[in-house]
Amino acid sequence: MTAGVSDEERLARAALTRVVEPGDEHAGRWLREYGAVELMARLTAPAPAPAEGALTGAGERRIAGYRIRAAGACPERDLEAMAEAGGRFICPGDPEWPSQLDDLGAARPVGLWLRGRPDLRIWALRSVAVVGARACTLYGAHVAGSLGSGLAERGWVVVSGAAHGVDGAAHRGALAAGGATVAVLACGVDVVYPRAHAELIGRIVEQGLVIGELPPGGHPTRSRFVLRNRVIAALTRGTVVVEAEYRSGSLVTARHARCLGRFTMGVPGPVTSGLSAGVHELLRGEAVLVTDAAEVAELVGDIGDLAPERRGPVLPRDLLGPSGARVLEALPARGGLDGGAIARRAGTTPDEAVVRLYELQSLGFVERHGDGWQLTPSAMCPSNARRGGA
Amino acid sequence: MTAGVSDEERLARAALTRVVEPGDEHAGRWLREYGAVELMARLTAPAPAPAEGALTGAGERRIAGYRIRAAGACPERDLEAMAEAGGRFICPGDPEWPSQLDDLGAARPVGLWLRGRPDLRIWALRSVAVVGARACTLYGAHVAGSLGSGLAERGWVVVSGAAHGVDGAAHRGALAAGGATVAVLACGVDVVYPRAHAELIGRIVEQGLVIGELPPGGHPTRSRFVLRNRVIAALTRGTVVVEAEYRSGSLVTARHARCLGRFTMGVPGPVTSGLSAGVHELLRGEAVLVTDAAEVAELVGDIGDLAPERRGPVLPRDLLGPSGARVLEALPARGGLDGGAIARRAGTTPDEAVVRLYELQSLGFVERHGDGWQLTPSAMCPSNARRGGA
Repeated sequence: MTAGVSDEERLARAALTRVVEPGDEHAGRWLREYGAVELMARLTAPAPAPAEGALTGAGERRIAGYRIRAAGACPERDLEAMAEAGGRFICPGDPEWPSQLDDLGAARPVGLWLRGRPDLRIWALRSVAVVGARACTLYGAHVAGSLGSGLAERGWVVVSGAAHGVDGAAHRGALAAGGATVAVLACGVDVVYPRAHAELIGRIVEQGLVIGELPPGGHPTRSRFVLRNRVIAALTRGTVVVEAEYRSGSLVTARHARCLGRFTMGVPGPVTSGLSAGVHELLRGEAVLVTDAAEVAELVGDIGDLAPERRGPVLPRDLLGPSGARVLEALPARGGLDGGAIARRAGTTPDEAVVRLYELQSLGFVERHGDGWQLTPSAMCPSNARRGGA
Repeated sequence: MTAGVSDEERLARAALTRVVEPGDEHAGRWLREYGAVELMARLTAPAPAPAEGALTGAGERRIAGYRIRAAGACPERDLEAMAEAGGRFICPGDPEWPSQLDDLGAARPVGLWLRGRPDLRIWALRSVAVVGARACTLYGAHVAGSLGSGLAERGWVVVSGAAHGVDGAAHRGALAAGGATVAVLACGVDVVYPRAHAELIGRIVEQGLVIGELPPGGHPTRSRFVLRNRVIAALTRGTVVVEAEYRSGSLVTARHARCLGRFTMGVPGPVTSGLSAGVHELLRGEAVLVTDAAEVAELVGDIGDLAPERRGPVLPRDLLGPSGARVLEALPARGGLDGGAIARRAGTTPDEAVVRLYELQSLGFVERHGDGWQLTPSAMCPSNARRGGA
């Protein structure tokens, strides 16, 4: 599929997404020690005699579980099914692999299943997570939607979990602003959960990305929801919690973010609301209080190492794909245009144009200001962006 | 009136409250240099020839203003009027003077006019300011009232400015919980402002303290409101802002508190409310987010230097006044009683009992737990609280 990862490695890793639960650090350490191909070979080899090794009872039971699931894995079928659904599977070593996930150490995903056109690695460079309560209030939904649209208008990719409540509102806000959004699912990316979000998830596949660790058909469980949160935290430059009760899953995401050195933010609410109690607890700790998208963007945009747009393009223009190059050519030398106008000039659809514009922004070629997109000053400098011609 | 301050000094300072605006640092420096008696003597002496001294035009105009007001001052009449209204005037050097006001430096009040029975110095030891918007929302009023009652139930004295909105709600909350409250006015303590708070201010005079820098009949002005805030900040161990728009007076109080090394706290609200915008700005700075009275009490009660109740009594029992001693005697050796029961056993009124109980608490003899008052363990130790007999 892409250079750098062998077919054998990809097959083994696709198989392992069916064998290993998300975030399983035991398996992660073995994977690091043996590699994916060798680990799958061991798990599918005839079982050793019980006396071999120094495993505890629990370790033996864990390995027995891996063996049973490894025997049933059929990664060729999974990869084929995903390709038929227009999706793909990416592994560490792929150009599209977001290297910030490596911060998860032994809990790094074995691989990721993806649906959608954008390049995950590039989009994740300028992404922020907006998470919160499923059973949020109208206030929480309003704030999440405003954050989603406000961040999208500022050129940020909005990452969330596609759940009811705050998650859904954040995705919808980004989509409504013609912006970029990524849903990280706790189930297979071909599974629609929650059912009521079928249309929303379909729209995200069209205009953004739906990603997850589970293989096709994988169903969400309580622990998978919790472990999904570490991917949201690791993928993004910061996590904003909008409404959360004490001991809620969103607080888990925020704590992951803090442990990973990402920005942790919270939107306050009435102290009389139990749905803001968890956020306030967070804000009494190390999280930063934010009240709107501008404050979020100011905070997460404030460090230089992940902000290529401040340094100009990070790769020459002739390395862009054909679609990205066409969209870049469609931008006027002066002033801005909205996504629709750029799509018409580039001869593509508005959704495709948005996908490429966010990529181009992460790469430092363009900037979004409200509804308009324009070339960055450095991208217009011939010695820089236009080297190699286009 | 009390030892330590001569009648001459008290008269001069009472006169100066009519001559000098609150917080006037020029006058404060002269006061420090010459003393009150000498300063008044100079201001009432015949004016020097214009060529004398090296004053600027502005300085000359200021001194001319002082002279005009000094000529009209009649401190004997003010002190008499205040005594007739059941009030008093205290100065630096008086046993009742709250020494934490000295932190204001040259802006320290010249003196304070007081109405109410409690000892200001002792009450201020365990006090917290609750301030906020006049035009608060129902949410803000609810939160201010809860903080007022919750702090009072925990034995804290609630200080505020008797204004409409948050201030009034905080005072009322404290009063409703049978607690202690101090109103710091920006006018004479015999002036009822706002008019609609006549009953509230009367109730605070009965059960707590009404204090201010202005002489009898002094009217509130915009600058006096702003400068009053420094007294609220300096007097208390911390300031909680409940609702405040950008650039509001409550934020001035909070910034004073921070500059003086007091705790600065804010209660969040919906980010969609302009009345919480100022508080959120404060919370994005150095203020601590608090959601209820328990969190406030935990924060301000956390340092030892101003918390005598953690060290046991700070003065021997036989130094208490007769009323304080009677109330202390009325407490049972074991367990607690409510204020009404203690008043009956002490043969006094419930209001008088509350006044003395809060003093006894600040001195470390008693503790309030909800509605009940009880002896502190250390106050029951004969070698400590009962030394000298009672």
